[in-house]
Amino acid sequence: MIDYTTLFRANLPPAAAKYNGFPKYNFVGGHNDAASVPVDDFIAAASKVLKREGSTLATYGLQSGPQGYCALREFLVKKLGRDAGIGCTADDILITGGSQQGLELVNSMLLEKGDTIVVEEASYGGFLSRVKRYGVDMIPLPLDKQGLDIEAVGRALADLKSKGIRPKYLYTIPTVQNPTASVLPLERRHALIKLCESYGVPIVEDECYSDLVWEGKRPQAMRGITGDDRVIHIGSFSKSIAPALRLGYIVAGWPVMSRLLSLKTDSGTGAIDQMIIAEYCEAHFDNHVVALRKTLKRKLDVLTEALGANFGTAAEFEYPEGGIFLWIKLPDSVDTAKLFQAASKEGVSLNPGAEWSIDPVYGKSRLRLCFANPTEQTIREGVAKLAEICNREFGVPTRIANVGR
Amino acid sequence: MIDYTTLFRANLPPAAAKYNGFPKYNFVGGHNDAASVPVDDFIAAASKVLKREGSTLATYGLQSGPQGYCALREFLVKKLGRDAGIGCTADDILITGGSQQGLELVNSMLLEKGDTIVVEEASYGGFLSRVKRYGVDMIPLPLDKQGLDIEAVGRALADLKSKGIRPKYLYTIPTVQNPTASVLPLERRHALIKLCESYGVPIVEDECYSDLVWEGKRPQAMRGITGDDRVIHIGSFSKSIAPALRLGYIVAGWPVMSRLLSLKTDSGTGAIDQMIIAEYCEAHFDNHVVALRKTLKRKLDVLTEALGANFGTAAEFEYPEGGIFLWIKLPDSVDTAKLFQAASKEGVSLNPGAEWSIDPVYGKSRLRLCFANPTEQTIREGVAKLAEICNREFGVPTRIANVGR
Repeated sequence: MIDYTTLFRANLPPAAAKYNGFPKYNFVGGHNDAASVPVDDFIAAASKVLKREGSTLATYGLQSGPQGYCALREFLVKKLGRDAGIGCTADDILITGGSQQGLELVNSMLLEKGDTIVVEEASYGGFLSRVKRYGVDMIPLPLDKQGLDIEAVGRALADLKSKGIRPKYLYTIPTVQNPTASVLPLERRHALIKLCESYGVPIVEDECYSDLVWEGKRPQAMRGITGDDRVIHIGSFSKSIAPALRLGYIVAGWPVMSRLLSLKTDSGTGAIDQMIIAEYCEAHFDNHVVALRKTLKRKLDVLTEALGANFGTAAEFEYPEGGIFLWIKLPDSVDTAKLFQAASKEGVSLNPGAEWSIDPVYGKSRLRLCFANPTEQTIREGVAKLAEICNREFGVPTRIANVGR
Repeated sequence: MIDYTTLFRANLPPAAAKYNGFPKYNFVGGHNDAASVPVDDFIAAASKVLKREGSTLATYGLQSGPQGYCALREFLVKKLGRDAGIGCTADDILITGGSQQGLELVNSMLLEKGDTIVVEEASYGGFLSRVKRYGVDMIPLPLDKQGLDIEAVGRALADLKSKGIRPKYLYTIPTVQNPTASVLPLERRHALIKLCESYGVPIVEDECYSDLVWEGKRPQAMRGITGDDRVIHIGSFSKSIAPALRLGYIVAGWPVMSRLLSLKTDSGTGAIDQMIIAEYCEAHFDNHVVALRKTLKRKLDVLTEALGANFGTAAEFEYPEGGIFLWIKLPDSVDTAKLFQAASKEGVSLNPGAEWSIDPVYGKSRLRLCFANPTEQTIREGVAKLAEICNREFGVPTRIANVGR
């Protein structure tokens, strides 16, 4: 046999754990509502697009080149123009294997060991863990109820500059921030762009939840405001349609796009996924997201009711402006990393706050619960179970469902 | 604006060139025969699998976990057992975004700057260019008509050992070698395994063309012979079904698999592609490849006839044992890198040998022509045009179609 431990490169990330199926009460991961997947419309779209263009599968990139299926990029041009106020052409769009690959490409283009980036103090755990692999310093930026505190961003950038540090980029999830679910107001977006430009720091805006604002109206994307690469825009179909698809996109000009393309070494993104979603979206996207938002909001209401009933005032949160997750503060005595361990053993899965925060102390008694995938009944049961476990481990909440423990 | 040139990381690969559509005479890229894409069967498979399991698209990984759609892995277990003599379970298989991503994951697991690997002297250009990005030394291994010359491999490994160098792996395309299209005989496979094991060097076998051996019978895969991670096996559906799909796979045991998984940061491979291909393959794969081989062999015959008629004895080649490309030696006076430049201007695309070789001198007057995608008529016209250009640039061939120039 061969001993691979003598062959692995230095600094290899830890081995993955074995997959053992999803837990019964699955409040993690960007999964979506299963009943909302438009299966019949997908079948109709598949028949139509494959009959018309199926033979182009014989060529890499479907005759659309390395940036992705033209019809999908054309749909995005219309959608981004209308919903996000972004003026762009299909040449400015790269279809990626989820927004995940988009972020990875941007990181791979810009980051090397010892670099610095600035990031919202609570942010997407999958992003934070991947950036850590680069050996990059992450400077946390404070959030309030409306998202990034622009004055605090200014202080952080000034402080870095005084130390001779120019961050490689600022990463933000402005619309339905992950995990706080705030929406950055338009005036803050303008101020942030001005501020970052003055320090020569590009903004990477991750807008993968922006279709899921309850009211359906969102402030203009920062990419739309600048119209250029001061802002690299990243989006996804995972949250508005289905995550298993692995379809995301980057909006960028050619000086950036040409570098991203040379780093995208996978010879293209899955073609049938692209074809079916393009065909589907053209006819159905708008109605779909309207219905999906209603479903998600109903599930959120079930979750907040269940938290009220089971945790009472022990669970503090801001009511999200959209999305699929809730960011919760428990009393300081609760360590959610330990709660995660205990709950996992009983089939309740949650994101401990430390994994979703730059500063683990800030995250220690916070947690993220995703509500899109479990049924309403599962949400109720799972929250009750979580309260029980939390009470057993930390004595919190002290009263559950108005019954003293 | 932001000047990204001041932000890019060190050693960023060169910017990509703009895509301007495929050339008229397209003899490059692993494209396939358009008429052979089983469009109607794909539509039927899409309807069936989406109706049955479409709602699982709401979860990352389709309830199959991070290694890929279970039904596709189960199909591969059967197929690999029967065709390649590989005994494995679905747990040993990782579905990747093409064999491309498979290779990238293996590289990312093993390689760092200054490492050495051993590679067939002529090999897949997309592999060579990617490995170069790691700053890794590639030691060429001589090929003969049956593939790797095992004694020469032994000398190369002994020589490296004497210098204190243990290569990270040996990369080989044993079945329909790219570009020579040879098939490594079984006894050489056994000898290669023994040899590599004695030096502690794993073999990475890339078998993405192995379904396309004309006779339909191929020697057992080396992974099948070892049954363990002395050999990491990589395969693909690109060549046997369609390249735009982006579906490949790696066969490896858990100590390797768990590392590959932690490096696969794309949250899964495109799900609808996986679902449709699994459903399709279960019913149709075998008949499909039988028919595809016939079509490809007919196109190869058109190509070799056209070369005979237009280049005469100036174009030397071994008749391939399968696949989608022909490796051609022109007279020493021809520099195929320059031929490539001249031909590109007139709509004829080819792979210059230097890009498919470790040693550019070996590759200088060689070229690779892919024949799966162009129609028979296009092959004939393209070869005639190429002969014309080659004659004009290099005075070779001197006689074309039996007419002196």
